[in-house]
Amino acid sequence: MKGFFQLISPGELLSLLDRFDPLETGTVALDEGLGRVLATDISAPGPLPPFSRSTMDGYAVRARDTFGCSESEPALLNVTGEIAMGSPGRDIVLQPGQTARIWTGGELPEGGDAVVMVEYSHQLDDRTVEIFRPVAPGENVIRTGEDFGSGEAVLTRGHRLRPQDLGVLAGLGITEIPVFRQPRVAIISTGDELVPPDQEPGPGRIRDINSTTLASLVRETGAIPTCHGIIKDDLETMQAACDRALAESDMVLLSGGSSVGRRDFTLQVLEGIEGGELLAHGVAIRPGKPTILARAGNRAVFGLPGHVASAMVVFYLFVRPLIRRFSGSGTDSGLVRIRAVTGQPIPSAIGREEYVRVSLSRTAEGDPVATPVYGRSGLLRPLVRADGLLVIGRDVEGLDAGSAAPVLLLP
Amino acid sequence: MKGFFQLISPGELLSLLDRFDPLETGTVALDEGLGRVLATDISAPGPLPPFSRSTMDGYAVRARDTFGCSESEPALLNVTGEIAMGSPGRDIVLQPGQTARIWTGGELPEGGDAVVMVEYSHQLDDRTVEIFRPVAPGENVIRTGEDFGSGEAVLTRGHRLRPQDLGVLAGLGITEIPVFRQPRVAIISTGDELVPPDQEPGPGRIRDINSTTLASLVRETGAIPTCHGIIKDDLETMQAACDRALAESDMVLLSGGSSVGRRDFTLQVLEGIEGGELLAHGVAIRPGKPTILARAGNRAVFGLPGHVASAMVVFYLFVRPLIRRFSGSGTDSGLVRIRAVTGQPIPSAIGREEYVRVSLSRTAEGDPVATPVYGRSGLLRPLVRADGLLVIGRDVEGLDAGSAAPVLLLP
Repeated sequence: MKGFFQLISPGELLSLLDRFDPLETGTVALDEGLGRVLATDISAPGPLPPFSRSTMDGYAVRARDTFGCSESEPALLNVTGEIAMGSPGRDIVLQPGQTARIWTGGELPEGGDAVVMVEYSHQLDDRTVEIFRPVAPGENVIRTGEDFGSGEAVLTRGHRLRPQDLGVLAGLGITEIPVFRQPRVAIISTGDELVPPDQEPGPGRIRDINSTTLASLVRETGAIPTCHGIIKDDLETMQAACDRALAESDMVLLSGGSSVGRRDFTLQVLEGIEGGELLAHGVAIRPGKPTILARAGNRAVFGLPGHVASAMVVFYLFVRPLIRRFSGSGTDSGLVRIRAVTGQPIPSAIGREEYVRVSLSRTAEGDPVATPVYGRSGLLRPLVRADGLLVIGRDVEGLDAGSAAPVLLLP
Repeated sequence: MKGFFQLISPGELLSLLDRFDPLETGTVALDEGLGRVLATDISAPGPLPPFSRSTMDGYAVRARDTFGCSESEPALLNVTGEIAMGSPGRDIVLQPGQTARIWTGGELPEGGDAVVMVEYSHQLDDRTVEIFRPVAPGENVIRTGEDFGSGEAVLTRGHRLRPQDLGVLAGLGITEIPVFRQPRVAIISTGDELVPPDQEPGPGRIRDINSTTLASLVRETGAIPTCHGIIKDDLETMQAACDRALAESDMVLLSGGSSVGRRDFTLQVLEGIEGGELLAHGVAIRPGKPTILARAGNRAVFGLPGHVASAMVVFYLFVRPLIRRFSGSGTDSGLVRIRAVTGQPIPSAIGREEYVRVSLSRTAEGDPVATPVYGRSGLLRPLVRADGLLVIGRDVEGLDAGSAAPVLLLP
């Protein structure tokens, strides 16, 4: 049981996530759609805008009636009326030489094809206006369907809904939105030494940090965490807890101490899942090597490294992508990746992709500078100081000060 | 009433936000703390870890007992026992020449000051172990309080809580977290032409897009939106709606059409707020010039541009910073700022700071390239294509293709 199943690359682990399917779909109301993932392509059920609208305050005209006019030789037009906001502009019909007062957003009258800004007009009396500048057909107008024609593609399946997307759906009258179900993620902490955060730990005991951290990471990714508490270091108890969690969740995260004995326990539990299949045991990254992934049907179980700092790296690299895959969006972390210059040399060993916690500052020119926040993996302090994870490739033997390197920004 | 009060710079408007105070404070439970802002500095109520812990599986030793040992001349130590996980290691007292079996995370025995990794040991029998490598005092040990000493500063007031911060609070046993109250933001759409998204608009009418978009933007910023519906273009009705919204909110967002007449209406409403003070009317940015800000006590009212695209820019630049200020964090947008290279020339006029919607791609080297997503401000399509806002300074007359420019990433 000692040693690793087979150390795989981070890319290989990511490609294993393709074996899981996105969850089933349903609908949510418009005001619950933020951050959810579209389950179908959306096309416009009708044109947007639904009618040709003015983008200016002024006069709706037949453009050709203004051709050739100027300050010295204004066009004289008959004002047939005013199109009040929200009233049907199409009820007014412009004959040659006629115009109608219109406001920004108003519907163009029948026969009108452009709008003259009020600044280029002078109303002589109730019935007559002078126009000083010609307009081209379509000028100061958004035409029917110019934004989205009827039936035109608007948003695609798998898109995570942002405020502006919800605005467009509102505009199209789509108020029941087809989305993928949010994944349910169960979190189990293991360890005889652990007590819940609200208890005073006795001698040799410490408070459980991983449950709180992992639940927040899950929530941040848009999934629903359930903490299954602290489970004793006992194979049967762990197995039962894992089975129970798996029955009511899409994913189970098992985390605990980093001792080799406990890792073997976790491995046994994952191997013991009924109908389960061990997909990975050991990844060539640092930190995060002792990562385990198993599958039971379309459900996943991760065995995470015990140190919370390492567990967080594994979460961002692999758990988050799988949550996103379950949610119907791409199998990536969705983290923002920037390039930063290193503020000091950073050593690294060949053979493992390394993720170095860094804090970010800026040069006078505004370019990001990454400074490692070192600390043993059991410590929490470097975590609260870190803004991102600097990535050092597996074939790179450390970075010189001033090198450019990719940094994944922590959300 | 026409024209603007006084066009101010974006920096001037931001500095006006300092006149508002952070909201009152309260507490939330640990599992509701994600994204909330700390209302007090947090220091460690006790040392973390609460005792000296092993970071390895192996043997707890008195380091000096291993000095000078080697593969060929191992140190021979007496095994006095095993420190089970969660048991008080301090109950075992190491005399010179003694050792105890220990696991990762276990409490060091009394007298022990280092841990020898199991890989560098060989257990001869129940009572005796050979040690092949010397360890320095403190090696493979995290000392009591090494992460945070008792009373040491951990997190500061104004910090937005991330998963790792909540983990640290869990570790310290701080389960009731002092936080600022979340701002309540009321949203009012004005316009006789508007119907709610779930209604079929008649001739000359369109669905309200701004309420949905703004509510989602507010939620995304960690505040609580309340939609007050669509209010008719009538001064008294608007004034009454604004007063009602103000009475139950920290901030009111008024948005509607872009007609000059309606803008004047909004201005009159904001000027008519009892005990109110007009702080700004007009900002030298594009889009977003017709922004209005008023204050009534510690409550704010924004008059936003009517076009949703412009309203979004104003939201990210000014409303979001004020929500963050109310929430107790810094008066900035909190948006990630990167530098991108422009994919094509981008024209701009001197005298206004310009915010150009861009989509982002990457060069083969991974550097971000910004391509403008053009479209008239009344259109929604450019919004759903945009990844960020490229900033062109007020004294810059456009950018050549290949120029580097700052881009604010949309969340």
